[in-house]
Parts: sequence; C-alpha cells; structure tokens
Amino acid sequence: MKHLFDQAIELIADGGDRFVGATHPAWANMVGPFGGISAATALNAVLQHPQRMGEPVALTVNFCAGLSDAPFTVEARPVRTNRSTQHWVVELTQTDEDGLLQTALTATAMTAVRRESWNANDMPMPQVTPAQQVPAFRREGVTWLQRYEMRPLTGLIPHQWEGQAASDDPVTASLSQLWMRDNPPRPLDYASLTAMADIFFPRIWLRRATMVPVGTVSMTVYFHADATQLAQTGEGYLLGQARAQAFYKGFFDQTAQLWSEAGVLLCTTHQTVYYKS
Amino acid sequence: MKHLFDQAIELIADGGDRFVGATHPAWANMVGPFGGISAATALNAVLQHPQRMGEPVALTVNFCAGLSDAPFTVEARPVRTNRSTQHWVVELTQTDEDGLLQTALTATAMTAVRRESWNANDMPMPQVTPAQQVPAFRREGVTWLQRYEMRPLTGLIPHQWEGQAASDDPVTASLSQLWMRDNPPRPLDYASLTAMADIFFPRIWLRRATMVPVGTVSMTVYFHADATQLAQTGEGYLLGQARAQAFYKGFFDQTAQLWSEAGVLLCTTHQTVYYKS
Repeated sequence: MKHLFDQAIELIADGGDRFVGATHPAWANMVGPFGGISAATALNAVLQHPQRMGEPVALTVNFCAGLSDAPFTVEARPVRTNRSTQHWVVELTQTDEDGLLQTALTATAMTAVRRESWNANDMPMPQVTPAQQVPAFRREGVTWLQRYEMRPLTGLIPHQWEGQAASDDPVTASLSQLWMRDNPPRPLDYASLTAMADIFFPRIWLRRATMVPVGTVSMTVYFHADATQLAQTGEGYLLGQARAQAFYKGFFDQTAQLWSEAGVLLCTTHQTVYYKS
Repeated sequence: MKHLFDQAIELIADGGDRFVGATHPAWANMVGPFGGISAATALNAVLQHPQRMGEPVALTVNFCAGLSDAPFTVEARPVRTNRSTQHWVVELTQTDEDGLLQTALTATAMTAVRRESWNANDMPMPQVTPAQQVPAFRREGVTWLQRYEMRPLTGLIPHQWEGQAASDDPVTASLSQLWMRDNPPRPLDYASLTAMADIFFPRIWLRRATMVPVGTVSMTVYFHADATQLAQTGEGYLLGQARAQAFYKGFFDQTAQLWSEAGVLLCTTHQTVYYKS
C-alpha cells in the first residue's frame, strides 16, 4: 500500500494545467486538512506538470479557506519559462455547499535548473542532542499529528495552559527546536519537506500558554537542496527550528529552518498566522 | 509635482481588475526598474482596487523577467473574500518585441481588517547609533539608488572587489544594518515600505566581495503595522537589517527586518536571489 503521505498528495491529470485530488482523513486538522499537506499537494501539481523545468527553488502558499472533505481541482499554470527558470501560478478550487466554485488556496512557485556555484551555509545547525537520544513525544489532538515522529528539544508545547510566559527573553520566548520525520519513515523529497516546513505548533501558544484560535494564512518555503541531497537525507531525521518575530493585531509571523542530520540547511521557511488573543 | 515614488507606482484603472502603468526612468536598475518599485506597484493595484477590504498583511512578489521601459498592465483579482480577510492574485504583463503578451511579474497578497489583540515584538531593534549621527553614504551606480538616503552602520558594500571575505563568522558574514528613508523624504505607507524591503544590496556581494550577476526572483513581505502606525512614522528613518541564511547552486536567501526609529518592527521580509558565482 502507498504511504499515507503519497495517498494524500496524489493528483490525477485532468487535461491541460488541471489536476484532481481529494482530502484524506489521515491528515485531518481542526478545520480541513493539515496546511502542510495542502501545500505539498499544490507543489505536487507543479512537480507532476509535463512542462515543468528544473527543481523547486521558491514556493508561496496562501490558505484562503479551510478545505472541505471533498474532491478539489488544482490548476498549475507555467506563466513564464526562461532559459533556466520557470514561474508558476497555482489555484486550488472546490465546489461549496451551494454548488459554487470557490478558491480555497493559491500558490506561486519558481523552479530552476540549478548550476554549480560557490555555496555557503550562514545558518549553521545548532548543536543539539542527537535525535536517537531524545525521547519521542506524542502530541495528543488532531489526526495529522500521528503522521509524524517528533522529538522535541526546546520550546515544547505547554503541558499547562494557564497563561504562564514561556520565557522573559523575547529572543528565546517563541523558540522551538525538534527532530522530526515521517511516521512511518519515508525518503525525503520536495513535497514531504514542504509539509514538514509547516509542522511547528503556533508560536502564540508557546508565547502565551493559551490555546487561542489560529490559522496559517500564508507560507513561503525556499529550498536550498537539490533532489540528490534530499535523496541522500533519505529517511533520516530533520532538525527544525522556529521562532516568531512579531505579534500584531491578530497576525504573527514565524521564521524557521530545517536541517538534515548531517547539518545541511535544506530549506528556510516563513509564515504569517492569524490568531485571536 | 508629485513625489517620484508616487509617479512611479501610479496606475490608471482600465476596467474590472485591470490597471495600466509604466516604468519610470528615475527608478532604473541594471536591467529594468528597481525590484522594490515593481513590488510596490503590484501592491498598489491591490490598494487601489475598489473591492479591497482591510490593510495588507502578506505580500509575495515573483520577478519573472526584467520589465522593459514601456507601459504594462497589472491585473489584481480578489480571489477570495472572507469575513475579515481577502486573498489576491496579481499578474503584471507587458507586450514584448514580437508583440506577444508576456508575464513579467506575479504576486499574491492578503489583506485583512485587523482587530485589537495581545501584541509583542520578539525581534527588538538592535542598539545602534542614531540615524542623525551616521554619515549618509552615496552609493554610486544605478539610478534608483539616488531615490534613497542611506546611512549604513555595518556590512557596507565592499569598496574593494578583491574577493576578500567579509568575516570568518558565518552568522555575521552576510549581515548589514543601515538607516534609510526616501530622498526627498515622503510619509511612510505600505507601498513605500514594500519598496524599502528590497533596498539591501545582494548578500553575495558582501559575502564574496565580488560583483557577480544577481537578480531577486521572489520576495515576501509580512506587515506588522497598521496605516496609523505607518503614518506616525512619517518621514522618519527606518532601521533595516538583512542577512543571508544559505547560498546554494545559484540561489541564496535573505531574511530582513525594518523598524521605525521608535523601535516598532514594521515588517519582516524574505527573498531568494539568483546569483552566478
């Protein structure tokens, strides 16, 4: 049987730039599916497109509304193809209760044929306890959490929700670090890396120890690895680190990095999240 | 006479979701105009749209190709309007030499009616010398540089291009801080803040002290201020801080923050940049 991740992001070509998919119950979140799996599905439309050139470099996904548990259409248009780069506009639509076609998600992506260059990592992996020595943590709650093995190092989700501050130091108050991988393990690729970029619980929950309503509205992933490097990472753990920068009138941002166990910075990612607090 | 910034981002309604604009010689870059002014123009289409609800929260702009010095059309579609948030897809097109309509820029934006909430700044402004005590720096080169007053603090553009490393410490090697404002001064708004989010010279130039070919391919801005706060900032200086995280096979990323002189974190911004090195 196919891995639950591959089942969830599966798309059937529907002619031209269109693909058909459906939400998967194994990835259910509070309202609709886990945002990371929807982002991975949007990227998958680009990856499966017969005109796609090169590998993903940048992806931005906007969550316009919670998906309903029903089929959806993803349209991925290659709007500009240059010599070595290609720009994409993606739109996921779903028919609502009244029979109206509604946009539930938009995305833009840039793919490129990468060439050899001078390379550097200006964000070295923090020195932390190796994954194997960190106990796995079972987060209770929504279904999709069971799809990941998480081994948290710092900035764990509060076990008391009494409004206690996580820290007095603003720079570390919203910081979390954890080891993560698919459960069961699955070789890393662009789609699964995209989903894991959205794994962090909302920074406002850590910062306030209060479980307020939240929802990611926009997420960007910059990929710093090619398919060969992702394949080399295989089923190994990734180290993820996330922190907030600003909380202001109902929206906060999150900036995050994901490294391979070998210390390769695979992607950097940012998101802005609605909160009611 | 209108400020050169307002001249450059000016759009004329062309019916429905369409607006017409043109490049402005005062904002010329190496190829086409300064990316920041094109990003501001894309946002301006959303801001001027009669159906726009609320203020900008997130903006992603993808630079698909250099604009030619000619008129262009910007289409800004409100693809989903919720109770307090609205999602936009923007596309800038231009007719090329062969008479073909080509996409030169895509963007997505999210606007929202912000509500009062618990607020926090987890990225306090660094303690630096006040703007008035820092000498202004005249960067030679392309035209658009004259549109800004820049007072650099650290991570200045190299004055020797001999491949010397900026620093041995990866964490500070690609770091720049500077005070900036429009020249001549102009009251801050969402459009001008967007443009200033793209003001930093390419991190690869700092890191390598080699002036290699570069071009921003995607940029995201998260706004953490409302129109009232921007108006309060007025014509004051902004402190900008930028650094790279990864340079890999032809693309590096940049993460940056812009504060008001009073220490308000007005926006956080990220971009991925093509480089040949």
